[in-house]
Amino acid sequence: MSGFVSFVGAGPGDPELITLKAVNRMKQADAILFDDLSSGPILSHARPGADLVGVGKRAGRPSAKQDHVNRLLVEYAQGGARVVRLKSGDSGMFGRLEEELIAVRAAGITHEIIPGVPSACAAAAAIGIPLTRRLTARRVQFVTGHDVTGKLPEDLNMAALADSQATTVIFMGMRTFPALAAMLIDHGLSPQTPALLAEAVSTPEQTLYRGTIANLSDRLANGIGDAPALILYGPLAEGSDV
Amino acid sequence: MSGFVSFVGAGPGDPELITLKAVNRMKQADAILFDDLSSGPILSHARPGADLVGVGKRAGRPSAKQDHVNRLLVEYAQGGARVVRLKSGDSGMFGRLEEELIAVRAAGITHEIIPGVPSACAAAAAIGIPLTRRLTARRVQFVTGHDVTGKLPEDLNMAALADSQATTVIFMGMRTFPALAAMLIDHGLSPQTPALLAEAVSTPEQTLYRGTIANLSDRLANGIGDAPALILYGPLAEGSDV
Repeated sequence: MSGFVSFVGAGPGDPELITLKAVNRMKQADAILFDDLSSGPILSHARPGADLVGVGKRAGRPSAKQDHVNRLLVEYAQGGARVVRLKSGDSGMFGRLEEELIAVRAAGITHEIIPGVPSACAAAAAIGIPLTRRLTARRVQFVTGHDVTGKLPEDLNMAALADSQATTVIFMGMRTFPALAAMLIDHGLSPQTPALLAEAVSTPEQTLYRGTIANLSDRLANGIGDAPALILYGPLAEGSDV
Repeated sequence: MSGFVSFVGAGPGDPELITLKAVNRMKQADAILFDDLSSGPILSHARPGADLVGVGKRAGRPSAKQDHVNRLLVEYAQGGARVVRLKSGDSGMFGRLEEELIAVRAAGITHEIIPGVPSACAAAAAIGIPLTRRLTARRVQFVTGHDVTGKLPEDLNMAALADSQATTVIFMGMRTFPALAAMLIDHGLSPQTPALLAEAVSTPEQTLYRGTIANLSDRLANGIGDAPALILYGPLAEGSDV
């Protein structure tokens, strides 16, 4: 009896922004391993008796016990379980999917990846803007704002990030944004570039703050909240002109 | 009696990769305006009697009648209808959402945007790779491969696109990829950079071709198919090492 692992994108948080396929896999699962952001009402799709295992880790906390998650996935599957590994947003973006894929593949376990709605797409939708625009914003990029030590990564591609014709979304970048904003401005991006801070996107706790990269930087330098947040900047972040 | 417009991401094509919220809006809709890529089984969620209006346009065809779509949206809503504007993939990416938002807002019509699963995320999932990797692929970018005339855009940010530490997904770029690949190589990206061509992602017609930017360019220079396709390149596109 061999198990199976589904890596499932749970979407940005709104229980309605999960796919039919994700719901179907959850209904069939013997075990669901979930992160902080993909918990709550979403887990109500689990069948009674399924093991619900929180393996969440918050940015800023000590190094996540990724080995432990990997081991759980393999052990459940080797025991014959249908396992859902629920990840917030899309399953393949900034969620350490690769580490878990390597572990599952090394153990010879059958698996699949089910994509989900990225939180960045939900943030743009919430503020009422598109992520791309013909002619003036033909590129959209998603980037992480910290490296494994929690600092701003040293090898950032500033020509890519300081591009006034792209929409940029920074994941896990609240602490490092003041330093990044200074670098963006040094590299020629206007301090007045529209920017958006989106916390707890698509949940009842959602808050949206709209400003510029300069004043968003000031705001974040004065302290940040505890909610997961995205920072979006670029010509489309203004919104009022659409 | 005032209407309402929901701009809804229908996902990449697999009828199971649509969100619960999208299904709910379709069930309530009086009219659904859909593109080629969001048709078929997905439309089965419409209630009997709803108007199903195809407004699809294929890359390469003569200029889409965007004005016509805008007018339909406004007229349906002004007539009191609940309108769903179904867009393939995510609603906010490369789908001319902005033009339609402008029209709807100018007419004072209440509206919302519901995000969906981008086809780029589904392509990565189908080939079994993540879109990001700690340390070596911390940036993922989506870009369109043609401008309004169907040619490669002239103002491409080559420092962003020729980055060996990013995952890049090109939408609507099959015809222009040979020219782009030459530019990428000129700008220092290795011809051996892993690349993937994904046609009709997540549908029964899905085909995946894996190679390098150099040999994918050769293949596309010799003719392209008719199916919608994405091109993905970067260190993660190899896949075999994960």
